[in-house]
This record gives sequence, C-alpha cells and structure tokens, in this order.
Amino acid sequence: MDIAHYKEDFLDYLKTEIIKKDPVNLYLPIEYILELGGKRLRPILVLLSCDLFNEDYIKAMEAALCVEMFHNFTLIHDDIMDKADIRRGKETVHKKWNVNTGILSGDALLILAYQRLEYYEGEKYKNLMSLFNKMAMEVCEGQQLDVDFEELVEVPLDTYIKMISYKTAVLVGASLKMGALIAGASLEDQQKIYDFGLNLGIAFQLQDDYLDTFGNKDFGKKIGGDILEGKKTFLYIKALELANDKDRFKLLELYGNEQNEGSKITEVKKIFLKIGLDALLTEQIEHYTLISFQDIEGLSIENSKKLVLKNFGLGLMNRKT
Amino acid sequence: MDIAHYKEDFLDYLKTEIIKKDPVNLYLPIEYILELGGKRLRPILVLLSCDLFNEDYIKAMEAALCVEMFHNFTLIHDDIMDKADIRRGKETVHKKWNVNTGILSGDALLILAYQRLEYYEGEKYKNLMSLFNKMAMEVCEGQQLDVDFEELVEVPLDTYIKMISYKTAVLVGASLKMGALIAGASLEDQQKIYDFGLNLGIAFQLQDDYLDTFGNKDFGKKIGGDILEGKKTFLYIKALELANDKDRFKLLELYGNEQNEGSKITEVKKIFLKIGLDALLTEQIEHYTLISFQDIEGLSIENSKKLVLKNFGLGLMNRKT
Repeated sequence: MDIAHYKEDFLDYLKTEIIKKDPVNLYLPIEYILELGGKRLRPILVLLSCDLFNEDYIKAMEAALCVEMFHNFTLIHDDIMDKADIRRGKETVHKKWNVNTGILSGDALLILAYQRLEYYEGEKYKNLMSLFNKMAMEVCEGQQLDVDFEELVEVPLDTYIKMISYKTAVLVGASLKMGALIAGASLEDQQKIYDFGLNLGIAFQLQDDYLDTFGNKDFGKKIGGDILEGKKTFLYIKALELANDKDRFKLLELYGNEQNEGSKITEVKKIFLKIGLDALLTEQIEHYTLISFQDIEGLSIENSKKLVLKNFGLGLMNRKT
Repeated sequence: MDIAHYKEDFLDYLKTEIIKKDPVNLYLPIEYILELGGKRLRPILVLLSCDLFNEDYIKAMEAALCVEMFHNFTLIHDDIMDKADIRRGKETVHKKWNVNTGILSGDALLILAYQRLEYYEGEKYKNLMSLFNKMAMEVCEGQQLDVDFEELVEVPLDTYIKMISYKTAVLVGASLKMGALIAGASLEDQQKIYDFGLNLGIAFQLQDDYLDTFGNKDFGKKIGGDILEGKKTFLYIKALELANDKDRFKLLELYGNEQNEGSKITEVKKIFLKIGLDALLTEQIEHYTLISFQDIEGLSIENSKKLVLKNFGLGLMNRKT
C-alpha cells in the first residue's frame, strides 16, 4: 500500500475540479488557496482509510475534496482573525485581495465543501453529513477557545487539550472516519479509526508547539513565534505550574509586556528548559502517539494494514516541518 | 388559514432552541442576532408552504429554523462587509463585539443552519440539502456581484436583476420550496412555488429600492441611503440609460464625488423624477408581482389556498417598511 499515490491522485482530481466561473472575484481566491500547496494530509487520510477498509478509494475522492475545502475555509478565516499576511510562503487571501473577499470566499468554500458530499447517497450521505456537521461545529468552538485564551492569564491544561482537539484533531479523526464510513466499515471500526486520528492529531499539534519553540530553522515558521505572540501553549501552561515563584513572576512579566524580540524568546526558553519542559512535552507527544497506536490495534483489519497506519503516524511524528 | 400563528409558533420554537453553552463568546452573538427580531418572513414561508400542501407544518419547523439561521448568518457577515453599525435599531454583532467574533459566530451559525436539516430523513433530507446548498452558493454569488458593483460605473440591468435574485429572492423561493418538499408536494408544484417566491422576492427587493429613495420616514432606513452610498440600483441604472446627456453627466459626477448629503440626495432624486423613474420602477414592481401571481395559478392546490398566497404577496407589497 503506497501512500504517495493518494496525494498524486488527489492533486490530479483537484485540478479537474477547480471552478473557473463568474463572479471571478468569488472563485479566484478559492482557486488560489486550493492551489497553494500543503501536505494534503486530510484528503490523503480519507483516501487511505477508505482503501484500508477494502473499498475503491476513488469513491472517497469527493469526501477528500470536501475535507480539503473545509480545511482551507478555516485557513482563510483564521488568517483574517490572526492578521496573518503569509501562508505557505505566499500572501494570504485577505492580504492579496481584502478582508471582505476573504470573508465571502471563505463562506463560499465552506458551502462548496458541503456540496461535494452530495455525491453520496442514502444513509451514507446522512451519516457523512452528520459527522461533518459535528466536526465543523467543534472546529468553530476550538477556534473560539483559542481566541478566548488571548485574554486569559492562566489556561487549565485540560481546556488547552480540548482546544487543540477541537481546532485541529477532530478534522484528522473525521477525515479517517469518513473514509471508513464510505467503505462501509463497522461502527466500531469507524469509532476506532476516528480515535486514532484524534489522538494522532493531538500529538501532531503538541509537536507543533514543540517545534515552534525548540525546532531548528528547517521548521517552516519562525522559531519562537508562539512565545513572541504570547500564545498559551502547553509549554506556557506547564511552566506557570512548575516554575518557582521567581521564574513564574518573570514569565508573567515577559508575556504581559511587549518585549525586545530576541531577548524575550531567549529568556522564556531558558525558563522552559530549566524546568525540563522540552522533555515533558516530548513525553506528552509520545503519550498521545502511543494511545493512537493502541487505537490501531483495535481495528478489525489485517496486521499489514495496521502497519501502514502506524508507519503513517511515525512518518508524521518524525517530521521536521 | 391564519398567517399570524406561524410567526408565533416559530418564535416559541426558536426560544426553546436557542443554545446557551460554552464557549459563550461563540454562542452569545448567535443568540443575540436570532433574538433581534425582524419579520421572520422566511421561516413563515417554510411553514405556510408546508401547510398549503396538506402536511402538519410542525414538521417544517426545523427547516424554518434552518432558513432563519442562514439568513442571520448572511446578515452578520454582510454587516461586516458593509461596515454597518446598526441592524434593526441595535448594534450589529461586529460592532457590539468585534469583527473576529462576527466572522466566527457567522461561520458557526451557517453550520448550525445545516445541522437543523438533520431532522429529515432519506431522499427528503438529500433533496433539502441539495436545494439548500445551491441556494447558499447563489446567495454568495449575489453578495459578490453586489460588492463588484461598487467598482463599476455602469451595471447592465439584467446583471442587476441577477444580483437581487441571488442575494435576496432565491432564499424566498427556497424557503417556500422547502416547505413544499417536506409536505411531499410534486416536483412541478415545488418548482412553481419556488418561482412564485423568486419573482415575489425580486418585486420585494425592487420595492426596497423604491422605498429607499421615494419612501417616507416610516421606512426603517434613512431615506436616500442608496443614493448617498452610490449604490447601483434599478433607479441609477435606468437613469444612466434614459437621462439626457447633461443629466447623465451630472449623475455620474454626483455619484463619483463625496458630496454634501442633503444636496446630493435632492439633486439625484430630481433627475430620477424628471425622467419618470418613480413610475417606471412601480411598473417593474407590479410586473414581477404579477408574474409571481401567475405562478400561483399553476399550483395544484385549492383556490382558497391560492388566495392565501396571493394575499400574503399583496400584504408584503403594500408594506411601508
């Protein structure tokens, strides 16, 4: 089972399905973001999962397009909210056009994502829709929690895990579950592969936190970006819990003020390292990766296929970007 | 068949279905806009249509909630795009909270609208979804056309009619069609009642243009608002076509420059009246109202019920607000 060809097939399909029509100011930004690139992780997972449960994965292509469209809708709107100018090395939609175009083409992309699922019929359609609706609401709630965190000094760790679950991991889980559902997998298998995706997604996001602070320059983003923006990540939350009074005070001061870029990152990292947060976060990443691998074991598929999922997870967690 | 009780029943239902949950910053703006009031025209049409085709209209309640939620999603996002501070006499969502809250709670409201349709099953569900998706994309296209018009000096009249059809009328048509679909009406009846709504919606929007320029102060909005904003309405488009060279030049100049409020409205209205655009627009409104009444005639329902639809249309077109 070769993973690479899912991406190729998906990109071929995407190319044929890009809508070039009027009003061009609505559809061009959609074409632009869909062609910006990226790992195409979510559509690949839809196709892989369908394949694993012994169905022709071409049948999952519309669902793959649906989740990729949904993901890109969230990127357009999140980039507006975060005032981000650059996405995948290029201008974000609202930067290249304007905020109104970003809002409206994002809305249209969400509706187009829904429309792709019309390919499916009967109970399968209803179940896909129900799964998609639930996931989409959770993603909105996750984004809201993330926004809310900006105003909070302290965030409970379980609320943080809920936030990254909703904002990132449920879409990974839902992508896998959609593939399984299309293939006609049992409800139990659907749940198990969803859980695998959910836990792998949490591990993935925690690794993102790790790379953002401790990564090297191969990591796509600026190292220390989370610290500069004062993001309440796992590292910040645990540091407030574990640091001594002096360091905790220092940390709150550093996060509370606009600081010199270089020294802020250096000083915060020093506190994180002093209390061993690099090791603690690595442990957490391994914890969630391990749980996700246990979810694989519960699936009613051949061992060789379990290995495919496991290798996929390992590949994802060994990334440097 | 009493129309008033649809609104009462809908408002009672809405009250029980308002979601009060966390994150409160996501759900509170949704509650706020859903409780702002308004004519509740679209949900009433869903219920009325279901009733007309002999089905218990309580079964259409979830679809009624769906279209009202969708309508309010468009209001939240449109108000951001139009930088509107006031809606129904109260602060708009992005004004009361902020733009990010407006974007995100609008997104969530769109997804919640989709979720309401999960109440329906099988083919009915699929057909409702397919209708809703198509309508929603057209509304986005209509909004984009409206935005595009801001940059244009001349707009063809048929493109203007397309814009108001998509932005306003398709949701009126779709609301009626949803009710008919839920009641199990024939495809022909579904199409006819959709057409009725579409044409009535166009008449309604043209009347909005009329009232905005020639209305009295009972009309909720500031008289002359369209002229002040330089909106390319029916009146502007026809004036460019019918005015003499001197007046056409004057009109372009008035629309091209930021002008003294009072004199701009007065001078533009003078040109409109000079070439009889008040009568011409009234004629157009009557034209679309008449077509919509012809659509009613084609329906396979009792005459007494046709009269209900006709009276509803007449009531709507005799409004002053």
